[in-house]
Amino acid sequence: MLKPGSTIGILGGGQLGRMIALAAAPLGLRTHIFCPYEDSPAFQVSDAFTCAAYDDMDALDRFAASVDVVTYEFENVPLATAERLARHVPVRPGAKALAITQDRLAEKTFVRDLGIGTAPFAAVDDLPGLEAAVTQIGLPAVLKTRRFGYDGKGQITIRPGDDLAAAWETIGRQSAILEGFIAFEREVSIVAARREDDAFAAFDVTENVHRNHILHRSSVPATLAPEAARTARSIACRIASALDYVGVFAVELFVTKDANGETVIVNEIAPRVHNSGHWTQDGAVTSQFEQHVRAVAGWPLGDAARLGRAEMINLIGDDVDQWLPLLAEPGAHLHLYGKGEARPGRKMGHVNRLWLDESKDGGNCG
Amino acid sequence: MLKPGSTIGILGGGQLGRMIALAAAPLGLRTHIFCPYEDSPAFQVSDAFTCAAYDDMDALDRFAASVDVVTYEFENVPLATAERLARHVPVRPGAKALAITQDRLAEKTFVRDLGIGTAPFAAVDDLPGLEAAVTQIGLPAVLKTRRFGYDGKGQITIRPGDDLAAAWETIGRQSAILEGFIAFEREVSIVAARREDDAFAAFDVTENVHRNHILHRSSVPATLAPEAARTARSIACRIASALDYVGVFAVELFVTKDANGETVIVNEIAPRVHNSGHWTQDGAVTSQFEQHVRAVAGWPLGDAARLGRAEMINLIGDDVDQWLPLLAEPGAHLHLYGKGEARPGRKMGHVNRLWLDESKDGGNCG
Repeated sequence: MLKPGSTIGILGGGQLGRMIALAAAPLGLRTHIFCPYEDSPAFQVSDAFTCAAYDDMDALDRFAASVDVVTYEFENVPLATAERLARHVPVRPGAKALAITQDRLAEKTFVRDLGIGTAPFAAVDDLPGLEAAVTQIGLPAVLKTRRFGYDGKGQITIRPGDDLAAAWETIGRQSAILEGFIAFEREVSIVAARREDDAFAAFDVTENVHRNHILHRSSVPATLAPEAARTARSIACRIASALDYVGVFAVELFVTKDANGETVIVNEIAPRVHNSGHWTQDGAVTSQFEQHVRAVAGWPLGDAARLGRAEMINLIGDDVDQWLPLLAEPGAHLHLYGKGEARPGRKMGHVNRLWLDESKDGGNCG
Repeated sequence: MLKPGSTIGILGGGQLGRMIALAAAPLGLRTHIFCPYEDSPAFQVSDAFTCAAYDDMDALDRFAASVDVVTYEFENVPLATAERLARHVPVRPGAKALAITQDRLAEKTFVRDLGIGTAPFAAVDDLPGLEAAVTQIGLPAVLKTRRFGYDGKGQITIRPGDDLAAAWETIGRQSAILEGFIAFEREVSIVAARREDDAFAAFDVTENVHRNHILHRSSVPATLAPEAARTARSIACRIASALDYVGVFAVELFVTKDANGETVIVNEIAPRVHNSGHWTQDGAVTSQFEQHVRAVAGWPLGDAARLGRAEMINLIGDDVDQWLPLLAEPGAHLHLYGKGEARPGRKMGHVNRLWLDESKDGGNCG
């Protein structure tokens, strides 16, 4: 267990690392950011930073020697980096979570092997493999690279009559997975935390709306049958335990409907704090960022109860030009990431809104 | 009006500067701390810091050139420092607030001249002056140095029969003020913000309990007659306007009772964020620190509404050893200041507690 005054090392200097650092400080913890990019937003708010490549072993060794635990803000941390650091210092969440969530095929297989629903899927290693997978899964379907995809990158939807060879070219002829197209009612996610000793706390299920494959709006409470919400929590608990997970994570889910009512299946696991949990900064007793810090520090998890009805809207690209009216809006909480240029598609900030005048549907999940 | 990405310079690197910096970051603002003490807690969380003396004019000029506005965390900023900075960059709150609040006699006179109640007081410049003041004010009374007092330092209570010469020695034979002893029912404070254009927002009146002259507990709502609460707000409005104040400030008040009921009189003005406003971090829509940043940035003031019943307990000296049970307490919000040694009397952190299950008695005050 860390003591106040200890230092958390964070791999990645974007907005998630920045918000982890900002949550660590009020708990008396210092942060040291490791990121290869100059002008990383998290550098502005951390006690120390190292600007070096993730394969710079000397820099990694010095970084490891200066911190008491290491965590990360993104799932594509090279395994060699995590392993190098783990020689010297605990890395939380651990290598298992990284190995599985970096590979869509491994992740889907892991979820299916837990008896949890996913879209139908098949491995694709070459064009004949794609043809076989299409026969097995049917169309429409989504072809995704196994590795390094995010926000809709590295994937293409294949519809009946589409040219499979062209699709295979589009994703760069990389090892891939074909996933059956899910006619979902809604997208939701569950953000939760687990400690090393299996203590677990989940925030309320969040409803998410994407635009151009990027999260646009999250809101709580989600429109969701209570039984499906219980299923979502149970899924998160089981995934976290099976991964020996330490920290905050998110499970993105599709809500589907049949004659028996609504149910949820897993779309993706994110082994980190998650954009769909940003509402917790202003809408929950404990924010996802503080919760992550508590978990990786080995501290008691905080109360995950929701304070009221809440929503989060991402400020993408020049949406951020609305900062002044947002500041003037009563009850709106502006969060800007300290980034320079507002390029199209770039997440520049978000705004949280909270309404207390509403009954709540739950708190911690055990 | 500042734009996101601008830099706020902060004089003073203690916990108040630290919490201002932590509130500025989510608004996309950078901070640069100026403080003569190495290992200042605010250095850990700011984008830049200068460790130099307040009379180092070269360092002040470089600091002024690197920031867009200057504010401060303590009222004893030397006037020469503020004036030097003001040549280059706006200093908010301005020199008038500093000049008046640095001098207890000037402050009491200023308040009295606004027609606002204070304890009876008289200037004391030498021992015969003290004798004359005692004759005028009566005993018991409190002899306080005019300058540089805080947390009970630089003051002594004189009771009937006490040796006046000894009291005069105790406070170092400095220019002083004798204040009549107030048999108050309670101590309360009002923390509020004013913008340059006279926009004003006050947090709910806070009830304060001191131990050994150091704030121990603040709680809202205060036990206070509604009329007295309205008076407190009106006092804060009038003081802020008369000072051309920009930023957050606190007015400490005594609650007194007579045949007509409760009323409040002014004890002290603090031209800065204030310990009795720390509950707003977890108990109000906008924290006093964000509110201060908004005001000095020239931005719209935030909603000062209270979320529920709240209390703040200071962690003084080894109180901070309770960090682990406090972390485990549901709904308790721990705030540690990143200080090294827990010396007796040193403010190491605080804990906020919030209960939503209660009606509120107000929000902004206009």
